[in-house]
Amino acid sequence: MKLATYNNGRRDGQLMLVSRDLSQCVAVGAIAHTMQQLLDNWALFAPQLQELSDALNTGLLQNAVAFDVNQCLSPFPRAYQWADGSAYVNHVELVRKARGAEMPATFWTDPLVYQGGSDSFIAPTADIPLASEEWGIDFESEIAVVTDDVPMGVKTEAAEKHIKLLMLVNDVSLRNLIPGELAKGFGFFQSKPSSSFSPVAITPDELGESWADSRVHLPLITHLNGELFGQPNAGVDMTFNFSELVAHVAKTRPLGAGAIIGSGTISNYDRSAGSSCLAEKRMLETIADGQPETSFMGFGNTVRIEMLDHEGNSIFGAIDQKVVQYHPE
Amino acid sequence: MKLATYNNGRRDGQLMLVSRDLSQCVAVGAIAHTMQQLLDNWALFAPQLQELSDALNTGLLQNAVAFDVNQCLSPFPRAYQWADGSAYVNHVELVRKARGAEMPATFWTDPLVYQGGSDSFIAPTADIPLASEEWGIDFESEIAVVTDDVPMGVKTEAAEKHIKLLMLVNDVSLRNLIPGELAKGFGFFQSKPSSSFSPVAITPDELGESWADSRVHLPLITHLNGELFGQPNAGVDMTFNFSELVAHVAKTRPLGAGAIIGSGTISNYDRSAGSSCLAEKRMLETIADGQPETSFMGFGNTVRIEMLDHEGNSIFGAIDQKVVQYHPE
Repeated sequence: MKLATYNNGRRDGQLMLVSRDLSQCVAVGAIAHTMQQLLDNWALFAPQLQELSDALNTGLLQNAVAFDVNQCLSPFPRAYQWADGSAYVNHVELVRKARGAEMPATFWTDPLVYQGGSDSFIAPTADIPLASEEWGIDFESEIAVVTDDVPMGVKTEAAEKHIKLLMLVNDVSLRNLIPGELAKGFGFFQSKPSSSFSPVAITPDELGESWADSRVHLPLITHLNGELFGQPNAGVDMTFNFSELVAHVAKTRPLGAGAIIGSGTISNYDRSAGSSCLAEKRMLETIADGQPETSFMGFGNTVRIEMLDHEGNSIFGAIDQKVVQYHPE
Repeated sequence: MKLATYNNGRRDGQLMLVSRDLSQCVAVGAIAHTMQQLLDNWALFAPQLQELSDALNTGLLQNAVAFDVNQCLSPFPRAYQWADGSAYVNHVELVRKARGAEMPATFWTDPLVYQGGSDSFIAPTADIPLASEEWGIDFESEIAVVTDDVPMGVKTEAAEKHIKLLMLVNDVSLRNLIPGELAKGFGFFQSKPSSSFSPVAITPDELGESWADSRVHLPLITHLNGELFGQPNAGVDMTFNFSELVAHVAKTRPLGAGAIIGSGTISNYDRSAGSSCLAEKRMLETIADGQPETSFMGFGNTVRIEMLDHEGNSIFGAIDQKVVQYHPE
């Protein structure tokens, strides 16, 4: 089934069930008001929603209305956990290579994950407000999973059954703030402003055979200012699959229901697929020509992130955003 | 006023109003069911709760019952934001000195903050379950503030009015996992398991003159296995005050209501005050004798973190926890 959160003026919005073709939707407040309530009670509510979803997809729900992505908040307008991996190690290797540094061999066996902030996600078609272009504004096109309650120390083999939903992500990054912040040793903070997620979250079964080995075997398509920027296949070169990422982040702590775990920037060795962030393109340019040619995003620039099924239909709806200047009070 | 969250079998518990002397409490479900609901609607609900609090403190509430810290969950059993600073730069300097590294001068002017995980906080008197003593189990005694909605780019001068509550923290740390994790460059993750907070959260006015300059001017008292371990004054040597920390974390993103911002380990230059974590004591031993003498915590060890007013009364109730062995499924 497919789910979204409509803006109803409340912080956590209104949970909506969405048809497979993204044409119709229906509020399901009789089962759960919010996405978090659904995840908090997944075993109880998901079967009820699945029945409704089947009815919606066969056109049997009288109260269904047209689905409008512009009414969507992030599926979780705020969440209790957002941990983002860097599972495409090829991308990490490239980052290091561009600055002439060796990548430790353990990066191929020990997942790299950062703890993200989850109190303020941006709606999928809302502007991205930032105060300065000097920060080096970049997108990162990714996939994320959402779990139910995951016990501490879960084994990789047992992790996949905790994956309940999938979403697309724009992990907005401020590249020029990263070096100074990482040099301080405590990871990202100011360099990772609010992230955005796709209008629709889906259960893994919606992907059919494209969900296999805890990976999504489809291209993730990014357009920058209306032009195709990259379409690497998310199932290729993903060193750590989602089950491994979940097991990694749950090693010393349980994960609460609704925990969001990201893949990191999708990246293929096959460079003809393009990239999923400006930084990678700039690194490839630096390796080739000694310096980057592509600029970071400026105010007014747009980014669109989408995934299509084999028939060309949008699976999650599109993240479609414009960077705009923010003026602090 | 003083507030707590009782365990009522639900994920977010039941909001309780607690008397100043921590002897009495009352459920306030008619105003807000949970701490998060209160923070989501602070301007509306806080004045109503303040009236009830005044009545509770003067013995006028008929339905008040004895307050029992063992019924407490964390004031926020889960939260949307937990960012922990390292505001006692003297402590950071010591960490570096113990490993023979210089501390960059900017550490005195640019706050160090890490993004914590907030989906599973441990109750104040609950055991701390961890799978291995080899991880180097340590406590960190800290203070945290809770904000309402903070706009992105808030100025330090405007930040203090967003501080609505104060709590004590045990920022549990796995010291032997830190070097490997920080070497990877993305900050803490597995090395920072679930944190714990004091039974009671208080509004700043409850501290009287001990809340000044966005700092708490009282000793934070830590006992390890029943023996006094340290009592540094939280108002001394705090390089960045809470308003500065809030402004720092809100530079590139808004903070959602109920955001928790921590001080980092309390530490005084006056070493006779003792320490607020085992790592600092071990560093002092290393600097003095070339190697640490004090061990990290083992299963069965206890830590108690508390703050007393000038009359010797507990302000927040005590964090009082035992480390126990966790057996993964």
